[in-house]
Amino acid sequence: MRMYDIIKKKRDGGELSTAEIQYFIKGVSDGGIPDYQISALCMAIYFNGMNVRETCDLTFAVRDSGDKLDFSTINGIRVDKHSTGGVGDKTSLVVAPIVSSFGIKVAKMSGRGLGHTGGTIDKLEAIDGFQTTLSEADFIKQVNDIGFAIVGQSKQFAPADKKLYALRDVTATVDSMPLIAASIMGKKLAADDDCIVLDVKTGSGSFMKSVEKSTELAQLMVDIGKSAGKKMVALITNMDRPLGYAIGNSLEVIEAVETLQGHGPEDFTEVCLTLAGHMLSLAGKGSVESCIEMAKQAIADGSAYCKLLEVVSRQGGNTKLIENTSNFAKAKYSCAVKCKKSGFISKVNTESYGFASLALGAGRNTAEDAIDYSAGIILNKKTGDFVEEGEIIAILYSNDESAFAKAEEILLSATEVSGSKPENEPLIYNIIT
Amino acid sequence: MRMYDIIKKKRDGGELSTAEIQYFIKGVSDGGIPDYQISALCMAIYFNGMNVRETCDLTFAVRDSGDKLDFSTINGIRVDKHSTGGVGDKTSLVVAPIVSSFGIKVAKMSGRGLGHTGGTIDKLEAIDGFQTTLSEADFIKQVNDIGFAIVGQSKQFAPADKKLYALRDVTATVDSMPLIAASIMGKKLAADDDCIVLDVKTGSGSFMKSVEKSTELAQLMVDIGKSAGKKMVALITNMDRPLGYAIGNSLEVIEAVETLQGHGPEDFTEVCLTLAGHMLSLAGKGSVESCIEMAKQAIADGSAYCKLLEVVSRQGGNTKLIENTSNFAKAKYSCAVKCKKSGFISKVNTESYGFASLALGAGRNTAEDAIDYSAGIILNKKTGDFVEEGEIIAILYSNDESAFAKAEEILLSATEVSGSKPENEPLIYNIIT
Repeated sequence: MRMYDIIKKKRDGGELSTAEIQYFIKGVSDGGIPDYQISALCMAIYFNGMNVRETCDLTFAVRDSGDKLDFSTINGIRVDKHSTGGVGDKTSLVVAPIVSSFGIKVAKMSGRGLGHTGGTIDKLEAIDGFQTTLSEADFIKQVNDIGFAIVGQSKQFAPADKKLYALRDVTATVDSMPLIAASIMGKKLAADDDCIVLDVKTGSGSFMKSVEKSTELAQLMVDIGKSAGKKMVALITNMDRPLGYAIGNSLEVIEAVETLQGHGPEDFTEVCLTLAGHMLSLAGKGSVESCIEMAKQAIADGSAYCKLLEVVSRQGGNTKLIENTSNFAKAKYSCAVKCKKSGFISKVNTESYGFASLALGAGRNTAEDAIDYSAGIILNKKTGDFVEEGEIIAILYSNDESAFAKAEEILLSATEVSGSKPENEPLIYNIIT
Repeated sequence: MRMYDIIKKKRDGGELSTAEIQYFIKGVSDGGIPDYQISALCMAIYFNGMNVRETCDLTFAVRDSGDKLDFSTINGIRVDKHSTGGVGDKTSLVVAPIVSSFGIKVAKMSGRGLGHTGGTIDKLEAIDGFQTTLSEADFIKQVNDIGFAIVGQSKQFAPADKKLYALRDVTATVDSMPLIAASIMGKKLAADDDCIVLDVKTGSGSFMKSVEKSTELAQLMVDIGKSAGKKMVALITNMDRPLGYAIGNSLEVIEAVETLQGHGPEDFTEVCLTLAGHMLSLAGKGSVESCIEMAKQAIADGSAYCKLLEVVSRQGGNTKLIENTSNFAKAKYSCAVKCKKSGFISKVNTESYGFASLALGAGRNTAEDAIDYSAGIILNKKTGDFVEEGEIIAILYSNDESAFAKAEEILLSATEVSGSKPENEPLIYNIIT
């Protein structure tokens, strides 16, 4: 087999065989195929695509390129939720407690934030003492004991994807549906869940800007997951505005706690309940509708909140922060962002909101950057709200006072104010099964 | 400027600016752009093409990446002919003497053979003593003195092309019209001619298999040359059969000499006269028709033949070989290839004929291989001829007797014999001005 022939075949619109795809990913992993051939193939895939069979083969090859988890010693059905990444997306902190409060197992590996998107592990580390590294044995024991554990990715999952992504990132071949799907699912399938609910974000705060493209990606990922024997569902959710009102690590933990206490923001609560409902339903707890009702109940009766407390306690976090969120360390400085004119907030660039939070110190430009856990943004107004000139639309928090000017500028230029009230956009566009 | 943005722009169908193309080629030359970005851009160009303006800019950037010749001290109009490469193509040995016999200057740099195609320099080196390396001063002096000099490429012309081609060759991005045109013309324009006649080969012995594609390439190269201020013409000539009857270095020199003596093969003579006619006409010697008549005259009156003798003598070659071609060293062995059935030769794979000659020792698999100058093939029958079963269609020559079996097999399987006489194909399909 020669890489040249594989490139040429795809260039000419051919369908790559399973063996060819495996040869390619093996060569990516072991360095047997030079970068210039890898990038040429990625560009050919960008133009000529891959069918579902090829994409599944690619995904499985990526998955098989590294470590895999074995959850066979976990008792019960394992459900996970995976988000494609957004701004203000703290859903994991809410849905995992809800779902695990019903005895469903959530053995969760999460990532850190990079660029404009946050990461669940960073948010948890905003809770003083919270350990995001556990041995595999402790991790599994905790899941068996209390139904839910969450750690960062310590193992080497899908290293071929890491190599491939780094190369795609500098050769303008990221925006390819099969390559995106194989990248996300290759890593996801290295874990050992029975059911996966995908939260595919769409709009200005996500990397998929259109509902159509998001739906296409979601369908592809659902097909891949099913082909790997998983129960799958995908929700296409709105990221044309931040989810909830809090952006930034401890600020988001606080909002998640408030949501588990029953007084979270309406939009965020609805997305969490829908995701949790689908997770429970996939796990066999009944229809989606009845499972959403169960999720509401778990919030209403405090069992989900108690589950979060239990996990924080078990992983060494300071539960006093959860019990009274005013105990969270506050940023030294804050700055009110005022609207320059009256009107309706008609549109926001959610990605820019993420970058504003990043500028305040809440995120990372590179994987090595340190994080200011108390930095971030609390929105006072969101899309559709009427604002008077001079009214505060957001409050910025940071330990670096000099960061405000830039963040304020980003936020204001990302916020459109106009005379007419914008139409309501759905929170959840589509459900793919 | 970032290479990423250039790749993305071309990926999305955009038109690259002159500055972007220059940045790209500079990065190719100095290693500033990594191979994986170069190959990604080549693949994007493969899919989305380049317009004439971009292709010209690419060509000029390639040309400017290395040495250039300065022919300003040559008195008179400089004309060159460039062939895209074929099998049995010894036209340079005939047209340059014809054209220079009229006082037009031919300052020729030629290449060596590789793979199935031969090279003019190899053919000349089959003439004992012929020096294919001259100092630039001697080269120019010879052109001024006798109108014609021919050397191998000693300078570093268009090194960016060398790098780029090596990468395209292993990433399935060779077959791109703008990249091919820029590669050929980038090198060609590093010389300093006033007029260029392109001989674009088409068919089974050339790298352009269809007349349509060859015409497209020819038009593009003519446009590029004009944009560089050259007088240009391109002929699309038939390479669905070898040119003439001789394939192999000394065998082709002998055929060229016979042609200059007025008794060459009809097809080869016609192509030579047409090319020479266009060269003379571009150089201002009159209409193409009248110039073809002049070319015929130069053969008939022996002036073209005398010019070849003069050049061979001046460059140290043994003129006795030219004066009596039976003095050429003969291959130790020969082998008659007999037809297996009666019928018309309806089609041949010319490229395979080239590979048969290569197998006999007449060519190179890699640039380092040594050549057997006396090896090659003399065809007895060509496309359209009727052959009886057992009749000799070709005689193979080699100093390695063990090479015959493979060469014969290649030749026979490249020769189709059928019951009906094939239609006559034109020798010259098209003339692009």
